[in-house]
Amino acid sequence: MCGDRSPTMWLCGPECAQATVAPVVRSPMSADEVLGLHARLSNWGRWGSDDQLGTLNFVTPEVTAAAAATVRSGHTVSCARPLPTQPGPDNLNPVVHHMTGTATEGYGADYFALAPHGYATSHVDALCHIFHEGRIYNGYAAETVTAHGAEKLGIENLRSGVTTRGVLVDIPAVRGIDALEPGEPVFPEDLEAAEDAAGVKVQRGDALLVRTGRWRWRALHGPWAPNKGMAGLDASCLTWLHEREVAVLGSDGVSDVMPSRVDSVAMPIHTVAIVAMGVHLLDNLDLDELSPACAAAGRWTFLLVVAPLVLSRGTASPVNPIAVF
Amino acid sequence: MCGDRSPTMWLCGPECAQATVAPVVRSPMSADEVLGLHARLSNWGRWGSDDQLGTLNFVTPEVTAAAAATVRSGHTVSCARPLPTQPGPDNLNPVVHHMTGTATEGYGADYFALAPHGYATSHVDALCHIFHEGRIYNGYAAETVTAHGAEKLGIENLRSGVTTRGVLVDIPAVRGIDALEPGEPVFPEDLEAAEDAAGVKVQRGDALLVRTGRWRWRALHGPWAPNKGMAGLDASCLTWLHEREVAVLGSDGVSDVMPSRVDSVAMPIHTVAIVAMGVHLLDNLDLDELSPACAAAGRWTFLLVVAPLVLSRGTASPVNPIAVF
Amino acid sequence: MCGDRSPTMWLCGPECAQATVAPVVRSPMSADEVLGLHARLSNWGRWGSDDQLGTLNFVTPEVTAAAAATVRSGHTVSCARPLPTQPGPDNLNPVVHHMTGTATEGYGADYFALAPHGYATSHVDALCHIFHEGRIYNGYAAETVTAHGAEKLGIENLRSGVTTRGVLVDIPAVRGIDALEPGEPVFPEDLEAAEDAAGVKVQRGDALLVRTGRWRWRALHGPWAPNKGMAGLDASCLTWLHEREVAVLGSDGVSDVMPSRVDSVAMPIHTVAIVAMGVHLLDNLDLDELSPACAAAGRWTFLLVVAPLVLSRGTASPVNPIAVF
Amino acid sequence: MCGDRSPTMWLCGPECAQATVAPVVRSPMSADEVLGLHARLSNWGRWGSDDQLGTLNFVTPEVTAAAAATVRSGHTVSCARPLPTQPGPDNLNPVVHHMTGTATEGYGADYFALAPHGYATSHVDALCHIFHEGRIYNGYAAETVTAHGAEKLGIENLRSGVTTRGVLVDIPAVRGIDALEPGEPVFPEDLEAAEDAAGVKVQRGDALLVRTGRWRWRALHGPWAPNKGMAGLDASCLTWLHEREVAVLGSDGVSDVMPSRVDSVAMPIHTVAIVAMGVHLLDNLDLDELSPACAAAGRWTFLLVVAPLVLSRGTASPVNPIAVF
Repeated sequence: MCGDRSPTMWLCGPECAQATVAPVVRSPMSADEVLGLHARLSNWGRWGSDDQLGTLNFVTPEVTAAAAATVRSGHTVSCARPLPTQPGPDNLNPVVHHMTGTATEGYGADYFALAPHGYATSHVDALCHIFHEGRIYNGYAAETVTAHGAEKLGIENLRSGVTTRGVLVDIPAVRGIDALEPGEPVFPEDLEAAEDAAGVKVQRGDALLVRTGRWRWRALHGPWAPNKGMAGLDASCLTWLHEREVAVLGSDGVSDVMPSRVDSVAMPIHTVAIVAMGVHLLDNLDLDELSPACAAAGRWTFLLVVAPLVLSRGTASPVNPIAVF
Repeated sequence: MCGDRSPTMWLCGPECAQATVAPVVRSPMSADEVLGLHARLSNWGRWGSDDQLGTLNFVTPEVTAAAAATVRSGHTVSCARPLPTQPGPDNLNPVVHHMTGTATEGYGADYFALAPHGYATSHVDALCHIFHEGRIYNGYAAETVTAHGAEKLGIENLRSGVTTRGVLVDIPAVRGIDALEPGEPVFPEDLEAAEDAAGVKVQRGDALLVRTGRWRWRALHGPWAPNKGMAGLDASCLTWLHEREVAVLGSDGVSDVMPSRVDSVAMPIHTVAIVAMGVHLLDNLDLDELSPACAAAGRWTFLLVVAPLVLSRGTASPVNPIAVF
Repeated sequence: MCGDRSPTMWLCGPECAQATVAPVVRSPMSADEVLGLHARLSNWGRWGSDDQLGTLNFVTPEVTAAAAATVRSGHTVSCARPLPTQPGPDNLNPVVHHMTGTATEGYGADYFALAPHGYATSHVDALCHIFHEGRIYNGYAAETVTAHGAEKLGIENLRSGVTTRGVLVDIPAVRGIDALEPGEPVFPEDLEAAEDAAGVKVQRGDALLVRTGRWRWRALHGPWAPNKGMAGLDASCLTWLHEREVAVLGSDGVSDVMPSRVDSVAMPIHTVAIVAMGVHLLDNLDLDELSPACAAAGRWTFLLVVAPLVLSRGTASPVNPIAVF
Repeated sequence: MCGDRSPTMWLCGPECAQATVAPVVRSPMSADEVLGLHARLSNWGRWGSDDQLGTLNFVTPEVTAAAAATVRSGHTVSCARPLPTQPGPDNLNPVVHHMTGTATEGYGADYFALAPHGYATSHVDALCHIFHEGRIYNGYAAETVTAHGAEKLGIENLRSGVTTRGVLVDIPAVRGIDALEPGEPVFPEDLEAAEDAAGVKVQRGDALLVRTGRWRWRALHGPWAPNKGMAGLDASCLTWLHEREVAVLGSDGVSDVMPSRVDSVAMPIHTVAIVAMGVHLLDNLDLDELSPACAAAGRWTFLLVVAPLVLSRGTASPVNPIAVF
């Protein structure tokens, strides 16, 4: 039964009436409070005035080695959606994919084109993606981002990849439901309930992946326009992320709950985590294969490898993060 | 001195006059001999008539786990060139990269477009890339590759990534030179000399990476048109690759020596390895950071993670393979 | 009042209750009848076995010169929609438009990408666009259209442009309404009623432009998916077009009424006019500026110049047809 | 013989040793002199502070009607090169052209992508293309050109096309040679010699097309990098163009001679004609079919129709200008 919080039981289906953890609801933060976080949680200068990596500095070689040492079965799982080539309300500018070689040419060849920040594309945001008061992370001027590309904080800074411990937090599984509703917020209490259920504690250098059940909801109800509502983290999680010294944050949504519940701040997670804290975000992941893999493995941590394309001065890269158990 | 074959000494500079291993030169194979390899080295049906993975079947979870267990320092190295956005004789159809958000828009955003098989793009070939006598790997008809994409053997079959032991064979280092000349072949004897020098033996499930010094040669002499000559493996290596049960083959070139030295067979490695054997190829890697990293680590093996984009029915993906020491 | 059929009165608004011409409704053609048209209306071989132009052969230099001779005021009008860069139900694969030079680069420059057959893009179809029973116009095999492009009947055959007399038939104006409903058919009787009202007779070599009021309907009711219904010509118009020896057919829709009212034949106008007759079609024009210009000029004919881009082996070109009064 | 300056004799071949008009060579203008032209030839405010058309204001409906009235034979000629899809030294970022529908899909369809300012693409420059001292034509700030596109002077302002008298000046024909050499300048004296030879005088509202023989030179000598030298107009022509009140200037090159012969001013024709005078430029035309057509017609004027794509906020459009005789 679903009340049993053993990890292998997390993924109960819709027939399971008993939610395992009752959701907390915090009152929304004010715009001023969020503004205050920019100063309070700032990592500007923490790793030098030239730093291009932000909280990826938490991923030391020792952290990487320790994560690799956790590999047991060697089973691997993708955390990416297929690149979305079909238009729809959550994919307004579809990935272009054309064949340039086929049976008639005597070889197979193709071409693709994409704007990686699209709402259905699994991607990692570079730290130059978001501006706040004319600045990007570490205090660089927004004017460094021109039609020539991002002079600072481009995605090419991640050329050596991100190889660290991944932790999956599956909120619907903790709550014993299929999926969060669009617009439903996740609070620090949810993250901690998930930790308790999984018997794991998020720590310095981790890649925290938060599953909201977005694609499951989509499978049940059909596609929708993400700007009309996405489940994700409430702004109150920012301090928690800072305290835990999370290196990377990812989600099957865009990490932010939308609408944000904060007046006049559309995406506080994007703004504070990227600009103030220097946290790279993994947006639009697909964690629906990872969750049962964790349940089957009996653990919610794994070696995670993210290998962005080396696009000089780029603001993002599509990625296929690989979890190794 | 360079005569010392200890791994840390491999990377002697141009001032080093004494080549450590004198190159062997085999006579070219005939077209008939290469044709014979299609039958003799065939893996069609070996893993079932529905198999989509070819020699990636050698990468069992056990192989992956064993590779992860070799991680010591946690140091990571990219094997990719930056996506080539500048035109040149080795980049006739440059990767397009445009900014769609800049300082004036209030956020950083971009777009890119590429044909991944380009000669300066680090990519993995899907098994649907090459045809031979109207067939692709495992006997599927070439007609399955249409303008709708590849019905079989598309790159999406690699969605769980390739996580295995990587072995770097650095031919110029073994020979004590900067770089092979364009058009210079690599023979099985070279591969074995490199094994001996490194104290390693290529085995079932390995990702074999062969460095020819292409980018070093380019830095010294300027860019050139690859179809006028590229260092790479002679067709005589195919049997060796088959016997060693290599899972993946990669190079800083295109694995094939060009010209191929085989009358009327332009790229025998591409043709036999991909179509008959089902070996995924990693083309146009940049191994110039990996080689000194191996030398510094005192070993020429590492955990290699290749995470192709999930492009349904695609013939390739740009990749950034990550080596973990 | 709207009953007055003088051309300048055609464009009465919705307040006008009295339709000037009651619409006829023909019963749908059968699939067999449409199939019969392929033989009966065929122009294959009419202008030689090598012909690439179809009914553009009607536009002789004499026809062009006569059309130019009708110019009076010199006023010019565009018949194109702006290239549709915004996604929507009638624009699933939006035109890509990126700036590559801006204030920060010191010059203005850009890039665009499009699939010209999109439902909101004003374009001319090449004769290689549509196949019927494995053939394209003039009997060429469909197999001549490969990933290498169209070996025959590519849009580059229109490099000298189409310069001829244009005739606007504005069906909603004739009927005294704003716009036809999506899915509403136009019959030969409608075309002739429009001729009568305008005092003009469509003749050999003309470019016939049929306005259905699509964009006006869209402005009033919002965008919709064209495959759910578009006003356009019923299949019964094909014989009429053949008899009148129309050179080019254009519309603010796709010329075809959709659904087609013909069982199992999705787009009989596209199929018969392009494949059998060799008529180039102008799709998704914007005739909303042309119609009042005609009314103001007191005539529904003009010099029309269509100048397709010279895209070798292409299947279409976006165009901006210019009407000169 | 070539000395005969009758129009039909202009196009003598290389065997013709006797140049009909000895070229004048003016000394180069200084940077200060060119700078002075910005003030002296300025049309800012001439047609109102909101003007978006520049010297296209010279093309009144009367001018258009008069041009149409010159049509005699109805013969039409393209002035465009095929869109350049093959890479080369004069085409570093080739036009992308992919088939998305072929024999196997049952229809022909395609996709293309281009940066229209490329050196081998026939295109019209919008007036927002060039900046001078932080300003674009009519005094708008360069800051109006952002990654969102050009707020002012975008190519969509030409949606009604340019329909006017075209005048071809064929410099190599006047000189009795095949083609100007790369880097060879054209002076006002050359333009007037061509006028004399043709018996025509360039006048207000004309589209002046200057043939340098670029493509003929390329056919004879192979492709070259245009920035190493292109024949074109010397800066001394600017005053002449202003006095004649030319509406549009086009060339088979980029109108500017390159190098410009003016210290520190790379492209004075582009800079002064576009920014100060508001002249739209037609770059990289192909006039090799037009020239013999003029010779055959016995006149060097014609109706010219340029129909740019309606790309909102765009900086250029590829075009296929059509000359009608």
